[in-house]
Amino acid sequence: MSAVTAGFLFPRTPSGQASLLPPPPWHYSGEMLTIEYLAEPGAVAALLPPPLEPVADRPDAVAAVWAEWQWKSESGNEELDPVRSQYKECLLVVRCRYRDRDWSRCVFIWVDQDASLLRGHIQGYPKKLGEIWMTRPALIGQAGPRLAPGGRFGATVAAGSRRLMEAEFTITGEAESAGFVNAHPMLHHRLLPTVEADGGDALHEIVKVGSEVDLGTAYVGDASLRVFSSPTEELLSLAPREMLGGCWRRVGLTFRGGETLSRSED
Amino acid sequence: MSAVTAGFLFPRTPSGQASLLPPPPWHYSGEMLTIEYLAEPGAVAALLPPPLEPVADRPDAVAAVWAEWQWKSESGNEELDPVRSQYKECLLVVRCRYRDRDWSRCVFIWVDQDASLLRGHIQGYPKKLGEIWMTRPALIGQAGPRLAPGGRFGATVAAGSRRLMEAEFTITGEAESAGFVNAHPMLHHRLLPTVEADGGDALHEIVKVGSEVDLGTAYVGDASLRVFSSPTEELLSLAPREMLGGCWRRVGLTFRGGETLSRSED
Amino acid sequence: MSAVTAGFLFPRTPSGQASLLPPPPWHYSGEMLTIEYLAEPGAVAALLPPPLEPVADRPDAVAAVWAEWQWKSESGNEELDPVRSQYKECLLVVRCRYRDRDWSRCVFIWVDQDASLLRGHIQGYPKKLGEIWMTRPALIGQAGPRLAPGGRFGATVAAGSRRLMEAEFTITGEAESAGFVNAHPMLHHRLLPTVEADGGDALHEIVKVGSEVDLGTAYVGDASLRVFSSPTEELLSLAPREMLGGCWRRVGLTFRGGETLSRSED
Amino acid sequence: MSAVTAGFLFPRTPSGQASLLPPPPWHYSGEMLTIEYLAEPGAVAALLPPPLEPVADRPDAVAAVWAEWQWKSESGNEELDPVRSQYKECLLVVRCRYRDRDWSRCVFIWVDQDASLLRGHIQGYPKKLGEIWMTRPALIGQAGPRLAPGGRFGATVAAGSRRLMEAEFTITGEAESAGFVNAHPMLHHRLLPTVEADGGDALHEIVKVGSEVDLGTAYVGDASLRVFSSPTEELLSLAPREMLGGCWRRVGLTFRGGETLSRSED
Repeated sequence: MSAVTAGFLFPRTPSGQASLLPPPPWHYSGEMLTIEYLAEPGAVAALLPPPLEPVADRPDAVAAVWAEWQWKSESGNEELDPVRSQYKECLLVVRCRYRDRDWSRCVFIWVDQDASLLRGHIQGYPKKLGEIWMTRPALIGQAGPRLAPGGRFGATVAAGSRRLMEAEFTITGEAESAGFVNAHPMLHHRLLPTVEADGGDALHEIVKVGSEVDLGTAYVGDASLRVFSSPTEELLSLAPREMLGGCWRRVGLTFRGGETLSRSED
Repeated sequence: MSAVTAGFLFPRTPSGQASLLPPPPWHYSGEMLTIEYLAEPGAVAALLPPPLEPVADRPDAVAAVWAEWQWKSESGNEELDPVRSQYKECLLVVRCRYRDRDWSRCVFIWVDQDASLLRGHIQGYPKKLGEIWMTRPALIGQAGPRLAPGGRFGATVAAGSRRLMEAEFTITGEAESAGFVNAHPMLHHRLLPTVEADGGDALHEIVKVGSEVDLGTAYVGDASLRVFSSPTEELLSLAPREMLGGCWRRVGLTFRGGETLSRSED
Repeated sequence: MSAVTAGFLFPRTPSGQASLLPPPPWHYSGEMLTIEYLAEPGAVAALLPPPLEPVADRPDAVAAVWAEWQWKSESGNEELDPVRSQYKECLLVVRCRYRDRDWSRCVFIWVDQDASLLRGHIQGYPKKLGEIWMTRPALIGQAGPRLAPGGRFGATVAAGSRRLMEAEFTITGEAESAGFVNAHPMLHHRLLPTVEADGGDALHEIVKVGSEVDLGTAYVGDASLRVFSSPTEELLSLAPREMLGGCWRRVGLTFRGGETLSRSED
Repeated sequence: MSAVTAGFLFPRTPSGQASLLPPPPWHYSGEMLTIEYLAEPGAVAALLPPPLEPVADRPDAVAAVWAEWQWKSESGNEELDPVRSQYKECLLVVRCRYRDRDWSRCVFIWVDQDASLLRGHIQGYPKKLGEIWMTRPALIGQAGPRLAPGGRFGATVAAGSRRLMEAEFTITGEAESAGFVNAHPMLHHRLLPTVEADGGDALHEIVKVGSEVDLGTAYVGDASLRVFSSPTEELLSLAPREMLGGCWRRVGLTFRGGETLSRSED
């Protein structure tokens, strides 16, 4: 009397067509602005639950990242229905130490599409909805920066009718490589409380996620960042103490799956 | 070196302030339009994974529900920052049989806010983002229906720049009680695929969820419903074969937690 | 060879169906929160172009108004397609003197729908798009204020990813009448620059607009208001110096047309 | 006692800072997809009010245009606050004859930002709000088309929770020039009804608008277009009878002002 249901994610149905997400591989093409800085001493450590520990070198380094993506699955043509394939996100990345190596770790992130929100939750990104904007380079005309020294970019993120962060970046040149905070495999927690809401988690995993990466020219330069208060965020604790610099580049990614490193019952 | 982090949901931080959701109890006050109909024979059964089975009486009955909510937590004042506390949702509810009793079950649902989206996922509602609208009664002036016989209401849901369903409801009178499809405790699956995306689920639970309910006057009447096609939905299979009727009422809810009925490793 | 085109507003077509607006009468039913205060001396006068002058009594009084509407035209059924008929707005109203009488005048306003935006421009309201939220009374359940002493309401407006104003209001009782700033017929300018953008206006009118009004119970009380900075607004100049009070009430309106008082060529 | 107020558009204030628009010149940089086709005989003529007449050659030709823009004013830095400077639009362009020459003319257009909406009204574009999406070329990675033969693009426009049009375009090669429908100066009406809403217009002008144009490589190819029904649109009358082709290109524009050709009192 009952049915076999299919689909990578809910809602599951006989055909799997309604699933909020198709299965990986997921491909991404986009533009990414990364701004690195040092927060107050101890600010990053305060966000690392045990057994994660701060890294030895510049433990308070943070990367504020803005990205504008188009994605598609391997089997689908989502890119031809761009309301489904385009989105923007903003995230704060730190580093941590776990099992004798250094990892990158996303501590806050906002995105403007549900497919990306859930794709993030599956990978352990603590995604919320937000409104994200970043200046595009002007490849023609006069309404924006050229990808050349002097080109200035802005970027903002808001949620709950409040601006949360705003950044500015000015290209000073090109570089072979750029950035060290968001340069490791990602170490995330995947969490879901019990439905009893009794203080425990029904799912509590530590996972490794990463993508195959295709990097465009790194345009590096100077950056500034402002952080604002909000009753639903804790960004003031990660406000910049010292700016390190920024980088704008085109990026291609492919995610094929991560790895569960630890699974605990809470 | 590392920190104790808190919060009902991610992102977890020392204070718990950034958590996408505060812990239950969650209170809701709102308005709900419920439209009941019969789908084609077997349409509901096709959406029930084993061990769920169709109910014996009118197994193809479906309730299409539109609701407009304001919510708050027990400890917070979310209702005073209404960008955080107001949202709308639209869902399709069916019934199923499990462990010798009848249950209600949400098979498709769209909502327009991230807190509600995740609150749904925690309760096993397969929520996606959508754009939901429902006519409000006009308690003054001429721009809407009165809560009286002849009052006409419309309701729509869209996602991905496509209208998915539209309904119309006309009050014929009041009733002591109304509706039978969405009248049982809810039986949901809570699902999350493994990060390996290897076809298995890291979380696969059957849960019971329900709320304390405070019901206003039931305005009952006649209803119609149109269902449209979409590459990301399977609503055509649940299109109406025979309309049963509708009901508009004010509703108050309190959710304190559900119950895990089954936890399986996939 | 060419056609007769119809429609109250553009785009005009043979049938008039595509017009962004149907012709008046326009009916509105909704809820309105009005907060009155005194700004710094001279703050209101600075916003009144000649020949408008400040009023004699409390010339710096301002009303900050939040409203949530459902509208319909006389001939249409927009209320049955609520994506077209529901919207919110927030406005700042002052008073001015012109032709020997006192008028109300909207100096800043944000709305979240294009039909309302253009309807505003036709009436001389300087509408921009914004994100507007106001607490709803809870007529059932626990997720909001009752319409009774102690009931607390919040209201916010944002634009360009920035919060512009936020207010709070607490009911202390009921009143026969309430408010004096937004109590006169409205005196507005209707403006459109020449297409040459040479500094002149092709349309420059002073108009009187007003509606037939149906008022519900006035719940009056205490209010606070915070005003934030923005590069595209000048709200700081209208920040409160002294709060006067607030009022929440249901309102019905019908707009049938205004009156052109002055038409000048610039 | 009263003030000098400034600003290109409303709301006018002492500083002009709050004006919904800064004065021209306005610069634009973006990407444009143009799809040309023939509608049913007479379909275009039906949308041309006298004294406009159809052109002699292929009078039923229509261009469906999708564009994604970043804009800035000459004096401002709007591009550094991209929530203000980025938007998308979709328009239908036809041709008409007036004063012994051929013109292009926008008959329907949707845009997703208020500054662009009003800038359109100032230039006589009958802009409404809509949700517009177009596939971006993938300059890196696998999530989109390359700017090369075989590259496939999609584009959609929706309003009022309804999809209005969707298009698909496949690059077949490059061309020196492309398109003939949107190739003339634009001839538009600027309209505003009287505030009396008595059937007359307070502003009724025929204007010429055009921009300085900087064109990137024209990628031409095959196109399809589907048009859907809506109670607030008349697009079915402009549905394609025969597709002509498409073109994707980067475009830079500068608008410095138009020219009033006729001003009538209605």
